[in-house]
This record gives sequence, C-alpha cells and structure tokens, in this order.
Amino acid sequence: MGSIISDSQEARLLCRRNQLTNTAGVAPGYLQANLLVLPAKYAADFHDLCLRNPVPCPLLGVTAVPGDAKSIRPSQCIKSKDFDIRTDFPRYRVYSSGKHIDSRCDLLDAWTDDHVGFLIGCSFSFEDALMAAGLPPRHQKTGTIVAMYRSNIPLLPAGVFTGGNYIVSMRPYRPEQIERVREITRLYRSTHGEPVAWGWDGAKELGISDVDKPDFGEAQRFEEGEVPVFWACGVTPQIAVEAASSNIDGLVFAHEPGHMLITDWTSEDLQSLKPGSI
Amino acid sequence: MGSIISDSQEARLLCRRNQLTNTAGVAPGYLQANLLVLPAKYAADFHDLCLRNPVPCPLLGVTAVPGDAKSIRPSQCIKSKDFDIRTDFPRYRVYSSGKHIDSRCDLLDAWTDDHVGFLIGCSFSFEDALMAAGLPPRHQKTGTIVAMYRSNIPLLPAGVFTGGNYIVSMRPYRPEQIERVREITRLYRSTHGEPVAWGWDGAKELGISDVDKPDFGEAQRFEEGEVPVFWACGVTPQIAVEAASSNIDGLVFAHEPGHMLITDWTSEDLQSLKPGSI
Repeated sequence: MGSIISDSQEARLLCRRNQLTNTAGVAPGYLQANLLVLPAKYAADFHDLCLRNPVPCPLLGVTAVPGDAKSIRPSQCIKSKDFDIRTDFPRYRVYSSGKHIDSRCDLLDAWTDDHVGFLIGCSFSFEDALMAAGLPPRHQKTGTIVAMYRSNIPLLPAGVFTGGNYIVSMRPYRPEQIERVREITRLYRSTHGEPVAWGWDGAKELGISDVDKPDFGEAQRFEEGEVPVFWACGVTPQIAVEAASSNIDGLVFAHEPGHMLITDWTSEDLQSLKPGSI
Repeated sequence: MGSIISDSQEARLLCRRNQLTNTAGVAPGYLQANLLVLPAKYAADFHDLCLRNPVPCPLLGVTAVPGDAKSIRPSQCIKSKDFDIRTDFPRYRVYSSGKHIDSRCDLLDAWTDDHVGFLIGCSFSFEDALMAAGLPPRHQKTGTIVAMYRSNIPLLPAGVFTGGNYIVSMRPYRPEQIERVREITRLYRSTHGEPVAWGWDGAKELGISDVDKPDFGEAQRFEEGEVPVFWACGVTPQIAVEAASSNIDGLVFAHEPGHMLITDWTSEDLQSLKPGSI
C-alpha cells in the first residue's frame, strides 16, 4: 500500500500522474476528501445542504470561484499553488440526470467555466485514529468494504435538494468499547464525528432490519457479543444529488469511491476545524 | 407592544430593569436568542450537539470563559461592554434533573464560576421577514402561540446528550406559497433556516398524525386549501437537556419561553453568519 507516501502534495502529484489508485492508508494524518462538482446555479443550494447536514456532509473546502479548478477556500485545505481539482483525485465519475455514465482519470475535458467543486470529509481519517487506539474497524482487518445502509434519518432539505436519507456506515464493536469509540471519533467533527446510533436498538431506530444485508459495501462479520455501531457516511451527498436529479440540468462529477483527495488539513486541525464554518 | 424600541442595547437594558417581558416585535431587524446555561463539564458536549444539529440548535454566541457572565464570543453577537447574561433576558427558568423548579427575573444568585451560557437562534427573526413579504404566520394574526410538535427526526448524539428528537413549529400556508416561504426563510440559517418538511405528506413523514393536537403551544386554524409547513424549533435543545437529565449534575438555566435576548446580530449579518462556525 501507499503508506510510504507521507506528504500530501507528493500524494496529489502521484494521483495527477495516475500512479495512485485507492488512497486508504496514504499520507496518514492528512484528512482525505470526497468530491462533488455541480453546475454553479445549484452551488448555493448544495452549500446550504452541507451546512444544514454537517454530520453526513462535512465541508473541508469549496472551489473559490465558479470555473476555477485551481484554488480552494479556505486556503489551509490545499496550501500548494500547484493544485488542480480536475486531476488531483486518482479517479472520477461523471453523472447525468443522477446516473453514473462514465469513469475517468481526470475531468480536464468535462469541467466547464460553470462548475463548482465541494470537498467533503471522509471517514478514512477517524479509522486511522481507531486503529492507533487498538480498535481497528473490522473491514480493515478482513480486507472488505465497510458495510453501508440506507437509514431513515432524513436529510434536511435545502433548495432543490429536497429528498434522500442519511447513508450510514457500520463497524462492529463490543458494548464496553463503545464509549471509547465515541470519544475517539467525536473529535473528527469534519469527517462525520461520533456515531449517530449504536447497538441492536440503534439499528432498529435507524430502520435497519438486517445488518447482514447492507445496501452498499460488504456484510461484516460479528464476533461473539459485538453490536453494530453506525456513523453518518460520505455517500450521503451523492444520494442527495441523485434524489434531486430531475431538477438538475448539466453534468455532475464525483470521485470514484475509495479514490479520495489528500488535503493539507491534518488531524491536528480537527479541534479548530468546524464543518459548518466553510 | 415594544415596537417603538428600536435599539438592541436599549432593549437589553429594559430587560435588565425588568421593564420588558415578551420580546416578540421588539427591536426589529436584530436577531433574538434562546438561552441554555450548563455546568462547564457538559459545555463541550453541548457545543458539539449544536454543531452536529445546527438547524434546531443554531449557535449565535457562547460565553467566552466559564463563569464569566459578561462576555460573549464572537464579539459581534453582543458589542456592548455593558452586558450581563444573568440579567439581560427578561425572565429565566431554573432546571434541576431536567425539571423546571423555579422562574426568576435574574440569575445573579444562581450563576456560579462553573457555568457556561449558549445563545441559540430563534424563529422570531424569520417571522419578521415573512410578515414583511405579506406572508404573516397565522399565530401572529390570531394572537396565539405557534403550534409545536415532537417529530421523529432524531437529534444526532454528542457526548452525554444521546436522546431526544427535533421539536418542530408549524405555520399553515397554501401550497403555491411554499416555494416563496422556503426562499425567504432559507437565508435565516442561524435562526432555523428553511422548513424541514411541508404538506400533509410532510406531516406524515415527521410522524405527526394530528396537527390539531400540538405537543406545545396552541392548535392553529387552517384556511381553505392550506397545508402545514414545519420548521425546526428552538425548544429542541431543552428537550436534549431533559433527555440527558439523568447524566447531568447541577443546575441548568434557560430563558422563559417568549422572553428572549436581543442580540447585536442583524438580519444583514445572516448571509455571512454560519451557525456551525461558532
């Protein structure tokens, strides 16, 4: 894996040259970001959606001016002047009317003067912290994809984005580990923070009747006595865009799942970084 | 009513002298705030609760240092140096173990070196804007208290605050008025922003089976063709504190309903003011 890559700018340049794919474990300590790119006329509504739903949709940065692919605000998110949102993710997806129509290594041809990009926090960051605390997420140990479910928590509407529920990811833990797991992930406010629900009652409250049948990712193995712990998941903003697809003209872009941007935010910025301030 | 009081500091001084009660209509254009005061050891968790649930719990300001009743950050919230959070609301409530045990004109005797105060946005502000747009809330026309309901939207947990659902307020409008009502209130991000649900289907989605039986406030009269429109409500943070009462030692204070603080934030600050940034 890429754990020998320790610098965020180095990692972005490798992505630009398509020499990196899955970014899990790359440049530990740097926060990784999901991408969503929309035509400018929907940008204010999507920004509002993130501010109103900061737990599933925590903002790490936004392109500063419509059409400008090279600068992100706030500037602490990407400090280098040598940056391009159209190339510095390892891989991208193209959506039309809510449907995934293409995957590609860059957005150079597809990006227009009218596009605005949003960088959204990703749970890779708090997984590092859980591992460091001796509480590794099961899917990391088994080499599977985290289990994700459609929950019944509604996204609070914002402008054209009026539908969709939270997607939640699930990691099994023993009941006596939950308070520590909550404490560790709480600080990661800009990457979903602490769990939204836990335990078998928590699953029921979220409307999840069978944890062995995730809606995305892979079912996780429970060991003796373990219960599910659920976090808000960064797939949620894509669900919001899908739900609004009949109201959206023009192409929408996102990252390819697992293929994130390495930002210059570090885990040391987390205490002061508030997802609702961007 | 107090509509001849146009200045925020003048209004606060009248409250301090107990010459003002209900603050509806006082100092139009200035944002009014709900209060919640907690022992310092719960302050970080409550702050997190607000950041994770900014629509029902939008922060307008926080006391700067535990025990200091006289300064609020950010400083734009209260610009005057002659301020005291213990006196400048018209009336206060005292809670012990989640129970309302006393109401009083000031908190001078009750406040300790260990208390932290949170100022939370209130919907009085967007009601002014709805009136100005010719869309007056029904309860203002009928002189009743807005209807409020327990919804099924869960508050996302934060530390000791692990229970409770959103409280929503309801105002009847005709279906063709809803987009305009959404637009007007959307800007008021720090005072609950746009509705969370609307229409009879919206009521059902929130788990509200009978709009004529509100859980708080008074039932509202529907005119021909009108449907319910629901906003997140500032009573929610009190519900969160009640739900956590078995985990909370020490006294908790709040404002008396309808008896708000007039802040120095104005409706012109709304565009730049983000509830998740404080």
